[in-house]
Amino acid sequence: MHALKTWLAALLLVSASWANAATPAVADPLPSWRDGPTKAAIVTFVEKATKADGSDFIPVEARIATFDNDGTLWSEQPLYFQGLFIVDQIKAMAPDHPEWASTPPYQYILQGDMKALAASGEKGLMELLAVTHAGMDNDAFTASVQQWIKTSRHPTTGKPYTAMVFQPMLELLAYLRANQFKTYIVSGGGQEFMRAWVEPVYGIPPEQVIGSQGGLKYVVDGGVPSLQKTADIVLVDDHAGKPVGIQRGIGRRPVFAFGNSDGDLEMLQWTTSGKGLRFAGLVHHTDGDREWAYDRASSMGKLDKGLEMATQSHWTVVDMARDWTTIYPATP
Amino acid sequence: MHALKTWLAALLLVSASWANAATPAVADPLPSWRDGPTKAAIVTFVEKATKADGSDFIPVEARIATFDNDGTLWSEQPLYFQGLFIVDQIKAMAPDHPEWASTPPYQYILQGDMKALAASGEKGLMELLAVTHAGMDNDAFTASVQQWIKTSRHPTTGKPYTAMVFQPMLELLAYLRANQFKTYIVSGGGQEFMRAWVEPVYGIPPEQVIGSQGGLKYVVDGGVPSLQKTADIVLVDDHAGKPVGIQRGIGRRPVFAFGNSDGDLEMLQWTTSGKGLRFAGLVHHTDGDREWAYDRASSMGKLDKGLEMATQSHWTVVDMARDWTTIYPATP
Repeated sequence: MHALKTWLAALLLVSASWANAATPAVADPLPSWRDGPTKAAIVTFVEKATKADGSDFIPVEARIATFDNDGTLWSEQPLYFQGLFIVDQIKAMAPDHPEWASTPPYQYILQGDMKALAASGEKGLMELLAVTHAGMDNDAFTASVQQWIKTSRHPTTGKPYTAMVFQPMLELLAYLRANQFKTYIVSGGGQEFMRAWVEPVYGIPPEQVIGSQGGLKYVVDGGVPSLQKTADIVLVDDHAGKPVGIQRGIGRRPVFAFGNSDGDLEMLQWTTSGKGLRFAGLVHHTDGDREWAYDRASSMGKLDKGLEMATQSHWTVVDMARDWTTIYPATP
Repeated sequence: MHALKTWLAALLLVSASWANAATPAVADPLPSWRDGPTKAAIVTFVEKATKADGSDFIPVEARIATFDNDGTLWSEQPLYFQGLFIVDQIKAMAPDHPEWASTPPYQYILQGDMKALAASGEKGLMELLAVTHAGMDNDAFTASVQQWIKTSRHPTTGKPYTAMVFQPMLELLAYLRANQFKTYIVSGGGQEFMRAWVEPVYGIPPEQVIGSQGGLKYVVDGGVPSLQKTADIVLVDDHAGKPVGIQRGIGRRPVFAFGNSDGDLEMLQWTTSGKGLRFAGLVHHTDGDREWAYDRASSMGKLDKGLEMATQSHWTVVDMARDWTTIYPATP
């Protein structure tokens, strides 16, 4: 019986290789990336990393790839999308809080002053989130994010937010995973906010999402346990907080990292300062027609020091207008 | 070609099932577990969880299994083994700190008063660790743990510490992974201490190790980045800290959890209070001949409330003397 199985298996393999020989070359794994130095840098990295007998081979367990979220995997204008969620939440809660009408930063939201709100940055948004959701059940928070992400539309494009993810980056995530990289999000955005929706959108499970973290408290009420959000800030996962978040949540230094703003530079520096083959990429928002064009002067996703560091350190900079044939996924 | 492949594949499947019918039953995945209700409870859980058309089926992505470490995966007497590491570290550092001779808890260590030291508990040990290692490079700390684990021997058995892991639990970890469970450590022990050695011993990678966490600071010195340990305590991953550590590090509620002390009860309660099929296990140290016998009166790994909770909640209690044919792996 064993011999029959072996023979059949061998025959099946042969027939599979006949089939392959008859079909055209393997499809391009990055069809939304225009041919050129950026795409070539990515493909060269992956081919070197996975060449078993090459000097740059990276063992499977060390293939850790980390991605910023806002501005790297999806858009972030006119405000981090989580900021837009918080705005909607604050507006919904405002009738119970008349004092907010004259209390910053709540008053900025209620008066529609997005510029003043944006100036409070990712940390300011995290604080607003923590304060407004303290005492809330963590599962209930997840449900409220899922409801929002399903029903809300972007103020200028009118698209669902999850339709404003970058098609080329979805292809890059899939390409890395097909080559046995473990893909993580490492973002200044709220960890629980992202975990609520990223798995079906990016193919990244909750345990591979690292973000800014509010406090959690384990409470047992009438025999029923729950995790309640507190107003504490446990980690601001931005700038120097990113390597710290990576160590806490992964415990290995990544070999591949992608960001888009100065808040990502420490993650890219940490990644590329390890031994052996490394890759650091920055998305440069150069496409004012199809997305937004901004860098040094922006309040969201400011890329200033990063452009020099990228040149000095030979990081790969994506010119969105030049390198991407498509920005958003085709509408189904 | 496609039709030929399909036909061959079908034939291969048929031949495989013939082969199975002709071969003896699959080898016991838990050979060090004696047949009885404890082993049956584990096997029944796994069979129900993986039966695709059963009412208790658990999708692969939800198969999260969490294990305490000290007393659950390896021994913990006369002191948590990490405590013995800290003792050795303090002794090595003492010549530079003459003031420690009269400062608790350092003086307990230098005077060999293990009882007084043990009374400071896992939190006390974490503090000692944090204080003595503040300012140390995280990679250098990992190297010092690896050196210690390689060269040190247990004070009474004379074995390397990694030879004092529980053979039945190694089999359980492997059995769960073979059934597509993702196995995690969730321990009061130091996260970086465990990550330094658990991967080859338990087959659990660093990113699946959650433990008590000291602070980390990202420092760039002369262009070279590093992560330095600080004296802060970020998480005491014990009691109510375990569900918090699970949410921070995994973001899903486990369906299977194993512990051995009252410090694990919140993790077991959190695990079993979710919907659907769940499993909670407690290792009861009943074997004074082959390991140690202790529960309610112990200072390390105290199991007091847990014995009642296990009865009330129908958790599975492992009686080491009765349920395990072997305690430690055979010496190679």
